[in-house]
Amino acid sequence: MDENRFKRQLDFILEIDREKNIFRQTHITGYERRENDAEHAWHMAVMIYLLREYANESFDVARAMIMALIHDVVEIDAGDTYAYDEAALATKDEREKAAADRIFGILPPDQRDELRSLFEEFEEGKTPEAKFARTMDNFQPLLLNDSNDGGDWREHGVTRSQITRRQKYSQLGSDTIWDYTSRMIDRNVKTGNIKDE
Amino acid sequence: MDENRFKRQLDFILEIDREKNIFRQTHITGYERRENDAEHAWHMAVMIYLLREYANESFDVARAMIMALIHDVVEIDAGDTYAYDEAALATKDEREKAAADRIFGILPPDQRDELRSLFEEFEEGKTPEAKFARTMDNFQPLLLNDSNDGGDWREHGVTRSQITRRQKYSQLGSDTIWDYTSRMIDRNVKTGNIKDE
Repeated sequence: MDENRFKRQLDFILEIDREKNIFRQTHITGYERRENDAEHAWHMAVMIYLLREYANESFDVARAMIMALIHDVVEIDAGDTYAYDEAALATKDEREKAAADRIFGILPPDQRDELRSLFEEFEEGKTPEAKFARTMDNFQPLLLNDSNDGGDWREHGVTRSQITRRQKYSQLGSDTIWDYTSRMIDRNVKTGNIKDE
Repeated sequence: MDENRFKRQLDFILEIDREKNIFRQTHITGYERRENDAEHAWHMAVMIYLLREYANESFDVARAMIMALIHDVVEIDAGDTYAYDEAALATKDEREKAAADRIFGILPPDQRDELRSLFEEFEEGKTPEAKFARTMDNFQPLLLNDSNDGGDWREHGVTRSQITRRQKYSQLGSDTIWDYTSRMIDRNVKTGNIKDE
């Protein structure tokens, strides 16, 4: 065993433990607290596996799962950027690039390059794996929020057009999920959980 | 789309959200709070991917990852059983079997059977996937605890023989990890974090 290689791998594994302290805007079911990045990534990966039959294109499940599991690692340095915070979104890429340099750089070079490449593939959202993983990234908080009677949308005064703009990308990964999502949005507009403007 | 099938899949996805409220004895790095089952499963799945080169046998990474991601689902009903709580361990199997019946039963029959079978394969620990996933199940809390100067071991007065009995199974999945683990145990016995009896 290459002791230095193993040490770098363990250092990375301990470093990403900090994702458990990066809290998102989304609340867990029951609304008692916000969920963190590690929980979100876990949930997404299970969803990729269970809902894979609805993907528009066939894809490599393991690749999509690992993409989901590590896609928020950069938030350890860059923080969580709320999907509807336009000011924060403007600097998101730059903050996340620096974070990716530092955090993936803890790994041995081959794994640094491999995970960095998976992270960038996810961000670009062009491959079948990235498209379906991103669909789950969008759908998972929606499901939680819908189960909480739209608490997060009401708290932030989110509008239909804001949600639709983001969720439209879900269609790239799955027409079925997008169809379900658009009905969910309609329902929550009707009940006033989402502002109709 | 089969609406009933999709509904059962989403019901399961929302049901397992409750894993975010099942807290383990292990503390996250920094020791500020205990970690929950969802966080633990996320961490294990990333470790399976990153440390797969150390497995004794070649294995299917996607299978081992989904096994890790769902192996604690039963604790939603059965609760977390601490690895060194002998009384609770005696009733663990019965409690977890009833939980598996109910929780996997939420899924459509084909996925119920598939996940139940993955869960049982993990519990039996005989296939290469199950062996390596279980090695990570053991190694992940050890890594955290070691990073926290053995806080969990000290709090529970855990002995070397208790840890060694459990961690010996790690050798089935990876001689390399077991070798590292046994050195970690020795080091923590020396500093008094683990009782030597």
